[in-house]
Amino acid sequence: MRVLGVDPGLTRCGVGVVDVAPDRSARLVYVGVVRSPADARIESRLATIAAGIREVLAAHRPDVLAVERVFAQQNRNTVMGTAQASGIALLLAAEHGIPAATHTPTEVKAAITGYGAADKLQVQTMVARILRLDALPKPADAADALALALCHAWRGSGLASSGAQGPLTPAQRAWADAERASRR
Amino acid sequence: MRVLGVDPGLTRCGVGVVDVAPDRSARLVYVGVVRSPADARIESRLATIAAGIREVLAAHRPDVLAVERVFAQQNRNTVMGTAQASGIALLLAAEHGIPAATHTPTEVKAAITGYGAADKLQVQTMVARILRLDALPKPADAADALALALCHAWRGSGLASSGAQGPLTPAQRAWADAERASRR
Repeated sequence: MRVLGVDPGLTRCGVGVVDVAPDRSARLVYVGVVRSPADARIESRLATIAAGIREVLAAHRPDVLAVERVFAQQNRNTVMGTAQASGIALLLAAEHGIPAATHTPTEVKAAITGYGAADKLQVQTMVARILRLDALPKPADAADALALALCHAWRGSGLASSGAQGPLTPAQRAWADAERASRR
Repeated sequence: MRVLGVDPGLTRCGVGVVDVAPDRSARLVYVGVVRSPADARIESRLATIAAGIREVLAAHRPDVLAVERVFAQQNRNTVMGTAQASGIALLLAAEHGIPAATHTPTEVKAAITGYGAADKLQVQTMVARILRLDALPKPADAADALALALCHAWRGSGLASSGAQGPLTPAQRAWADAERASRR
């Protein structure tokens, strides 16, 4: 399954594409950040974000798009721009004929690290291990986009949402795989 | 000047087009509501809203699009969907090569009724008078879209934001015109 993860934002919108095999192993296909200038008009910024996401959709043809679910309670100045960018990402999925899904930050952290309150460095570290990257994916928006894509692939399997179904949760298994790989 | 006003929403998105002359008189061109089913997937709902706004853009070729500015503080359940729909409207303006603007509900009420805390019925009543409609525009989302479009045309002239520049504010003048028209 090829998943495009989008960490929505106006100044920096993270986009990451991963291939996830039925055995849950994952491979990095593409990662990047779409930026728009803070002093541009809002409609122009959204068009820049849309153009960047469209390029990734056209170049990598994902099967599904996963975007971070934005909450009004995240009472930052930027929350409305973030919500608008997430709406753009969802619209583009529909227009490309692929399904979209949203996941909360807590769901993403839990899927990737096994711990819903994990910090950014833990998430980045796990993303790098799962994808066998030589360095942490940067900036954080890019890492978050990859984490979202991985979270979707794992949760989407219908197993990831319950850690009680096997001896290891997907995240624990990924940790174990990554640890094993790093000792080779 | 032809203005498309958009009152963003997922369940009901109001769209209204008005022509506003240099003397500030206004004429209704089109008003409607784009709806999307509450039980559809979010990406499909946003695509439905986008398709509806695109139809209006193509049919009526406005010079500018005005959309209600959404605040996170409006802590309703629907605020994120509203923000996403507003992002779609802004994106479509950019993609059609026309400028977009946002106005707050208070700005709209003040421009239309002269009173920033006016209630919905006052706004609907004034919109109907300004556009010489036989009945109040309904539903409220449609009236709000028309009010946004009128607000933009009047404020955009560079005079409407200050009531001190003449004996009458634009809203007062519109009231006066409407009153005169209704006595004819």
